[in-house]
Amino acid sequence: MTEQQKPLANDTLEKLRYASTATITMQLLKRGLRHGAIKRARPLDPRYARCVGPAFTLRYIPMREDLAGPPKPGPMLPHRVAVETAPAGSVLVIDAGGAENCGTLGDILVARLKSRGVAGVVSDGPVRDAVGVASVGLTVLCDGAAAPASMNEVMCVDLGIPIGCGGVAVFPGDVVATDLDGAVVIPRHMADELARDAYEQERLEKFVLREVKRGRSIDGLYPPGEKAVADYKKWLADGEPE
Amino acid sequence: MTEQQKPLANDTLEKLRYASTATITMQLLKRGLRHGAIKRARPLDPRYARCVGPAFTLRYIPMREDLAGPPKPGPMLPHRVAVETAPAGSVLVIDAGGAENCGTLGDILVARLKSRGVAGVVSDGPVRDAVGVASVGLTVLCDGAAAPASMNEVMCVDLGIPIGCGGVAVFPGDVVATDLDGAVVIPRHMADELARDAYEQERLEKFVLREVKRGRSIDGLYPPGEKAVADYKKWLADGEPE
Amino acid sequence: MTEQQKPLANDTLEKLRYASTATITMQLLKRGLRHGAIKRARPLDPRYARCVGPAFTLRYIPMREDLAGPPKPGPMLPHRVAVETAPAGSVLVIDAGGAENCGTLGDILVARLKSRGVAGVVSDGPVRDAVGVASVGLTVLCDGAAAPASMNEVMCVDLGIPIGCGGVAVFPGDVVATDLDGAVVIPRHMADELARDAYEQERLEKFVLREVKRGRSIDGLYPPGEKAVADYKKWLADGEPE
Amino acid sequence: MTEQQKPLANDTLEKLRYASTATITMQLLKRGLRHGAIKRARPLDPRYARCVGPAFTLRYIPMREDLAGPPKPGPMLPHRVAVETAPAGSVLVIDAGGAENCGTLGDILVARLKSRGVAGVVSDGPVRDAVGVASVGLTVLCDGAAAPASMNEVMCVDLGIPIGCGGVAVFPGDVVATDLDGAVVIPRHMADELARDAYEQERLEKFVLREVKRGRSIDGLYPPGEKAVADYKKWLADGEPE
Amino acid sequence: MTEQQKPLANDTLEKLRYASTATITMQLLKRGLRHGAIKRARPLDPRYARCVGPAFTLRYIPMREDLAGPPKPGPMLPHRVAVETAPAGSVLVIDAGGAENCGTLGDILVARLKSRGVAGVVSDGPVRDAVGVASVGLTVLCDGAAAPASMNEVMCVDLGIPIGCGGVAVFPGDVVATDLDGAVVIPRHMADELARDAYEQERLEKFVLREVKRGRSIDGLYPPGEKAVADYKKWLADGEPE
Amino acid sequence: MTEQQKPLANDTLEKLRYASTATITMQLLKRGLRHGAIKRARPLDPRYARCVGPAFTLRYIPMREDLAGPPKPGPMLPHRVAVETAPAGSVLVIDAGGAENCGTLGDILVARLKSRGVAGVVSDGPVRDAVGVASVGLTVLCDGAAAPASMNEVMCVDLGIPIGCGGVAVFPGDVVATDLDGAVVIPRHMADELARDAYEQERLEKFVLREVKRGRSIDGLYPPGEKAVADYKKWLADGEPE
Repeated sequence: MTEQQKPLANDTLEKLRYASTATITMQLLKRGLRHGAIKRARPLDPRYARCVGPAFTLRYIPMREDLAGPPKPGPMLPHRVAVETAPAGSVLVIDAGGAENCGTLGDILVARLKSRGVAGVVSDGPVRDAVGVASVGLTVLCDGAAAPASMNEVMCVDLGIPIGCGGVAVFPGDVVATDLDGAVVIPRHMADELARDAYEQERLEKFVLREVKRGRSIDGLYPPGEKAVADYKKWLADGEPE
Repeated sequence: MTEQQKPLANDTLEKLRYASTATITMQLLKRGLRHGAIKRARPLDPRYARCVGPAFTLRYIPMREDLAGPPKPGPMLPHRVAVETAPAGSVLVIDAGGAENCGTLGDILVARLKSRGVAGVVSDGPVRDAVGVASVGLTVLCDGAAAPASMNEVMCVDLGIPIGCGGVAVFPGDVVATDLDGAVVIPRHMADELARDAYEQERLEKFVLREVKRGRSIDGLYPPGEKAVADYKKWLADGEPE
Repeated sequence: MTEQQKPLANDTLEKLRYASTATITMQLLKRGLRHGAIKRARPLDPRYARCVGPAFTLRYIPMREDLAGPPKPGPMLPHRVAVETAPAGSVLVIDAGGAENCGTLGDILVARLKSRGVAGVVSDGPVRDAVGVASVGLTVLCDGAAAPASMNEVMCVDLGIPIGCGGVAVFPGDVVATDLDGAVVIPRHMADELARDAYEQERLEKFVLREVKRGRSIDGLYPPGEKAVADYKKWLADGEPE
Repeated sequence: MTEQQKPLANDTLEKLRYASTATITMQLLKRGLRHGAIKRARPLDPRYARCVGPAFTLRYIPMREDLAGPPKPGPMLPHRVAVETAPAGSVLVIDAGGAENCGTLGDILVARLKSRGVAGVVSDGPVRDAVGVASVGLTVLCDGAAAPASMNEVMCVDLGIPIGCGGVAVFPGDVVATDLDGAVVIPRHMADELARDAYEQERLEKFVLREVKRGRSIDGLYPPGEKAVADYKKWLADGEPE
Repeated sequence: MTEQQKPLANDTLEKLRYASTATITMQLLKRGLRHGAIKRARPLDPRYARCVGPAFTLRYIPMREDLAGPPKPGPMLPHRVAVETAPAGSVLVIDAGGAENCGTLGDILVARLKSRGVAGVVSDGPVRDAVGVASVGLTVLCDGAAAPASMNEVMCVDLGIPIGCGGVAVFPGDVVATDLDGAVVIPRHMADELARDAYEQERLEKFVLREVKRGRSIDGLYPPGEKAVADYKKWLADGEPE
Repeated sequence: MTEQQKPLANDTLEKLRYASTATITMQLLKRGLRHGAIKRARPLDPRYARCVGPAFTLRYIPMREDLAGPPKPGPMLPHRVAVETAPAGSVLVIDAGGAENCGTLGDILVARLKSRGVAGVVSDGPVRDAVGVASVGLTVLCDGAAAPASMNEVMCVDLGIPIGCGGVAVFPGDVVATDLDGAVVIPRHMADELARDAYEQERLEKFVLREVKRGRSIDGLYPPGEKAVADYKKWLADGEPE
């Protein structure tokens, strides 16, 4: 798994920021991966829907009443350690342990993540304090909001190991990208190449959309046939006019 | 099924545009139909929630990995044919084949539908490229958004035949109406008469709501007793003052 | 059950208005209650998400076709009686009887509730006429919107008795509080004391959030250790500066 | 609702015992009722699947932790009162309040029901002590088995009122019939007539099945055309030979 | 799609009868197909779980109350035509149109299928008359039993076209195999080759299971390493002793 | 977590074998634990439903197509290591990673577990090769059967760490007990004391059931009042006659 630590190419994150998650999943499909889109994680606030970064993982399991009571002073529990140690630029990805009616994060922890430079949060469970969280202005994708604290339903047991999140395998270091369509996971070892191809696909689709908006039929254009490819190349050569 | 081709009365669509889907389902109930509201189809963007028109149907089934790969140039697949042939003014109704985590339409196809004058789209599955689709400004009701393309999960097999969409039978030519409450289906043969009655019901409820907002009890007013009916007639005679 | 009629302390509702539902559920947990948050009830319009008040309950069961047809003039059915009798300041809490695709309330009944001074509505089923309901400006938490009227799926059988709403027991007189995170139920007998503690917790968290936003680590701060408690007291003594 | 107390015709229960629930639902459909079959209630033990009798109802709601603890000596809680008072020959119908992972009845209460002559139990939640319950030999239809006692999830609040059970309205006195296909509810006022017609339909289908097993096509036989009706009458006249 | 009509190799069905569905899905996976197992279709009676044959398809959609009433004499509806025309040896595969609480087949139609030599039935919805159906002795995989007839919820619209059944694409002529684990679908064009490989895999696993039952570790045995392969060959040469 | 390694009292497992899971969950409730019953784990074969032993845990996450293909020779994957290392007498508890349509174990691995003396298997996902697994005669509780192998949907990532299984926290060393009602988890530190109390409760309920079967009312008997307690003591003193 040391492949997960290899540095990404310089422009990989930037190119992925240019691409939509729709484009990224098409590139995953071209590499034989049909299951890269996380279920049950939607932007809490549509204004803060986009982020890209390597995954920092957190794992919850169902709570047990004798272990999971109201928080007390003392050594930090694992999820609080994660909040203090997730690297700047990373995306905190949470396996919420099946939480349906409690929030694993609230406004205070999200504010701390924002302040530490974390790029975003993706969870397959709810958050709490939805108003407070949205006011922080950090990208948060989750399964809606719920008032109860996590220990009503789940407890955090470890961080930094492979998890399942919304039906997708997430290894620490995998690249996560999000937008209004949700969150997708790119295996680390294919991130550089995929980013390049996704960037190219975005440019092509920008051209296609422009043509369609001008009234052109999709027949032969999308997916592009010979003529459309030629037109696209000309458009590129012309400097990609609007 | 030739009844499905008979032209609608001149003012049917216009009268239905005046009515809410709530009113239309009440008129369906008065005709013994309790199952006209499509499940899992909600406006993608609340600004573009309303449309009325005859149904043009499309049917997906689950994909099979050896048949459903990334798109290639060549003859258009059925859903692309549909995008190019759905009549202006029609509503494209999609049986998404159980799709839960992929979009059967994205920004490019929706832009083409808009450009061809289609009135709207109703699907019981997600769309993809939610930002792009919303920016087109076409009425789209669907089951949220998902990044992966349709061939990750489903494939289109035919168009223009009876389908089930969100638990409702839809025959080509049935009249579909949508708003924030969702999409409802009116069997073709009862559309003209139902439109007239829905129009009348809307006027009555406009009067009732006005009375309630002025502080009147709903007792005897909603549903209207003798006195309320008299008041309503007077209000009509008075030119329906606000 | 006479405890349910005892008057609340003067400032209980006011203190609860200051608290979030997240805070209230933490106070419930401290009293051993893990199940106070109603499922499937979300604000219909985020602008009208907050209300606090004693519960007035309404119970639906599945409809039977020979009993549940289009509304007729005559004596008011139980849900209409409820609309005319729910006390000003109360929260109408509806066990929607499993309704998934019909609205138990529409714009007219909600307008009447607003006009009668009811504080809000919480239902574990949909409402109908979502546009009209939202325009009334009353706090309504529900399971989305659906066009069909209630008698398509359910019928109201009684009011003012203990119900289950979204997986939570609600006794008439229990105190209900709502915000963007949903609705929570406080057993009547613990409302006064809980309100006081929730108020105090809110102040503490206001302090904690302020510290976090200024860059302080959550270690030792949240939950607060000795040093943080001292800082908090100083902040209180200083008049709670922003 | 006094119609619910009118005695049934002498042979109504006997005729219903001759009919399958499949036949009964067809007779309900002929009277315009499409929703008489209870969901989530299956025979716990296929050997004890059949019973017919008037409904005695019981209603649970979600438990509240401060009210629902381990059982204590004292006055009997409502569900125990029901076990001691449900009339011989009746079917105990339980609205389990959404219970998914607890049993509202166990071997001891079911043994007592059996001993008191109750005809059967229908619940939309689980039972517990499945081995013990099955060994009692009473007809029990439920949503499987679960080890925890009811107070882990729900509590009983009243008996003898209209309830919803598995999506069906059940009024005390309605006639309930069960077999391997599940449980169906016949509104009291139509039980006598429906029983007669169900009995006749059963005889006809016995004839049809005999013909099919002898190799006859279903074309013109099922549903029966003129020739088949004549054959049926002859078969009746011949004394219904095997 | 003419490939769907090409005759199968002589021993294909026989070899598939020797294989479990578990083995068949492993062979599908080796060919890149992960989605061949039909969901929600389980043997109604474990004694009649196995069948193999080419698919004959039937498609239901949700019913509409004005079209779907109690059966009447007259021309046969599509599902009755299917019962009279499905070839001997074929497997009737039903897209039940989302039916959850009604049976698309009952004892009479299943008896007719049996009498006509159909190999089995696979449906993603319930059947009705479970006792009667089981007594016929035909292999039936379905989603349990329900009393109401199909027209309570769905109606049949066509036969012999591609369908989705339990999340799997089924084309007429595809080969279907069933056992206690459920039903799997083999695309027609790969059936011959897959049958051969499945047969070989079964033999190997028979050997492996024998070794494990004699106490051998699975390490190096399952999946088989060099030594295990040699042992297997010897076992084959020895005539496959028990 | 060293408490998890402390030896159990000599008779703890034996006493738990005498108790039903229904009784064990009542003892958990008396200690404040409402969430000890695993969801979605039912006996695959009712003849092999019971086992008791310390938990040995296994964790799956969703598969990724580039990592999870058909099995190959080489070092054993984690779940195969578990099959070879789970101690005799332990219960293998599997977090199936959300698997719904694949089996994490088949007949060969279950045969090996049996041969190694493992007490049973509990999984919140399906097994495959249901016929073969049942023929092994090991206690297996799972979520039904499915033909596809695990790598169609999930992959095993580690063993011997805390997991969530069917909504319940399971720590290695916790005591698991199963019967027809399902599987329950007893935190290690309370197993000895709970086993003693469960044993006593079973004896009392044996007495109560005997009384009920002889026609005694449950009023004052269950839960037992003063008189019943005296009768119980006498019954004990009399040597617990049938």
